[in-house]
Amino acid sequence: MGNSVESKYWVGFDLGGTKMLATVFSEGFEILAQEKAKTKAQQGSDVVLDRIIKAITKACETAAVQPSDIKGIGVGCPGPLDLNKGVILTAPNLGWENVKLKATLEKAFGCPTVIANDVDAGLYGEYHFGAARKARCALGVFPGTGIGGACVYEGHLIRGKVNSCFEIGHIQVQPEGRLCGCGRRGCLETVASRLAIAAEAAKAAFRGEAPHLLEEAGTDLSKIKSNALARSIQAGDTAIENIVRTAARRLGVAVAGVVNLLAPDVVVLGGGLVEAMPDLFAGEVKEAIDAQAMETFSQAVKVVPAKLGDDAVVMGAAALADDMVEEAAESS
Amino acid sequence: MGNSVESKYWVGFDLGGTKMLATVFSEGFEILAQEKAKTKAQQGSDVVLDRIIKAITKACETAAVQPSDIKGIGVGCPGPLDLNKGVILTAPNLGWENVKLKATLEKAFGCPTVIANDVDAGLYGEYHFGAARKARCALGVFPGTGIGGACVYEGHLIRGKVNSCFEIGHIQVQPEGRLCGCGRRGCLETVASRLAIAAEAAKAAFRGEAPHLLEEAGTDLSKIKSNALARSIQAGDTAIENIVRTAARRLGVAVAGVVNLLAPDVVVLGGGLVEAMPDLFAGEVKEAIDAQAMETFSQAVKVVPAKLGDDAVVMGAAALADDMVEEAAESS
Repeated sequence: MGNSVESKYWVGFDLGGTKMLATVFSEGFEILAQEKAKTKAQQGSDVVLDRIIKAITKACETAAVQPSDIKGIGVGCPGPLDLNKGVILTAPNLGWENVKLKATLEKAFGCPTVIANDVDAGLYGEYHFGAARKARCALGVFPGTGIGGACVYEGHLIRGKVNSCFEIGHIQVQPEGRLCGCGRRGCLETVASRLAIAAEAAKAAFRGEAPHLLEEAGTDLSKIKSNALARSIQAGDTAIENIVRTAARRLGVAVAGVVNLLAPDVVVLGGGLVEAMPDLFAGEVKEAIDAQAMETFSQAVKVVPAKLGDDAVVMGAAALADDMVEEAAESS
Repeated sequence: MGNSVESKYWVGFDLGGTKMLATVFSEGFEILAQEKAKTKAQQGSDVVLDRIIKAITKACETAAVQPSDIKGIGVGCPGPLDLNKGVILTAPNLGWENVKLKATLEKAFGCPTVIANDVDAGLYGEYHFGAARKARCALGVFPGTGIGGACVYEGHLIRGKVNSCFEIGHIQVQPEGRLCGCGRRGCLETVASRLAIAAEAAKAAFRGEAPHLLEEAGTDLSKIKSNALARSIQAGDTAIENIVRTAARRLGVAVAGVVNLLAPDVVVLGGGLVEAMPDLFAGEVKEAIDAQAMETFSQAVKVVPAKLGDDAVVMGAAALADDMVEEAAESS
């Protein structure tokens, strides 16, 4: 066990496709300093690894923390990963392969490092510090460009043998449905992701059914972001409201299936769409669960928006670093 | 911790709607004696509780085991249950409510008793002694009149706070599907249970498309049992083969969704339909997983028929009794 007189700091890191966030935490998980940077993935993994190290170093300086006082680093990153070896196997968004994130950071900072899928880290953050605190079983569902899923069951993230799992976005919900980015048909992502919603919304705008959206964002999918959808609904584009509610309901029916399997206490909804329209999403998902899950499970489950926003991943990653250090101490 | 010189015996009990099975196990889980009896549920729970006690007592006599040497009793029974209190809350098949199974058996035999959902107990038996041995994550799928599901994850059955969960049969697979016994539409049970298959088969027989089935079982659903379906396929009723393969494939697509969530090592298929047609079911389910689950998960999962047959529930229940006694010893 560590010496309790000594200072303990945790570092949580969120490595995204376009930006990164380093955060230094006190032993009690107060945020002491944060450092943001652009990922610039196209410059290659070596350059980005350097930038990660610099961002952590900078955050430590701001917090007046010696790197030698960091007890553990947790990193949330896109997958697929080798969780055991701490390697990003491939990251289509980043264009990388076999990036030894754990080994690199352990060498740079001399402290144990754990990596996790970013969705898993985000839910773990909500479980320890946010909307899913003290849940026996918490589901996380994060509709964005795709749809991320995660589950904390009796204190631990559900995971695969080597990599993360809980790929709720690729459950088939329509037997003869639309083609998905994964190559299969009818995945949940084809009906309830931001991309699927934006495509429906663009059609409505093109047909003249959504004048406010057409004025703000036109018919270009890349411009139909979550906030544009939310504003168009508020301004009175009922066609857009129908599209978003239908997608949220379909998401809810898929979540109801998972509720029937795992009987969670809480479903945490997060991501840009939910942040822009929290009541709409929580309401539709809860209604779908009430309609489609077995009563004994639907009565026991709450549906809530995530609380931690952009800090969820770094907080969860830091909590995973704490777990790792504690487990190592217990087994030594 | 117990005195290892002392003899230890476990009792596993399978309480079904029509019959019951008591089994006495050695400490190393060899079957020493079994006692079967009819449940006769219509006589009421008090009479049946007496019959349960008699069956266990008789099995102990056959095994020459003193009831005082039983270290623990495990009972697999239909739900919904209060797992913590050891009570059958309601058992539609048995016509019971609030049956204090745990308290009754603890009083009768003076040893700790644990109850479990029968599907959970069956998979736990396969996990410890049968087709899912040493799996990090094992799914159990048991198509019968309904479709039972269970999951052992890192050594423990996934369960709800109070009752069992993993109700795979009530995941919605067809948005505007057939009415299910649960009152909802399009549940997996409406397309892949024995009852759903029998109804399709009866129609085919009625239309003259399945002469062998018509001759053996007629068009009465209650006579179109799993073995009748298997014999009709073997005799050349291709219409029946198509019906069963379609149902098995749909089962597989639903299982593929769960594979995407939990990344199991093994999927164990059991129940009467699978026992009658193990290769057909394992083959179709594996093909559906290969087609519908993400490659990293589908490559890692085996699909196998259950091995323990009618002994799965009693073996799993006895293993749960062992766990309970060990946990109590560790925490004391």
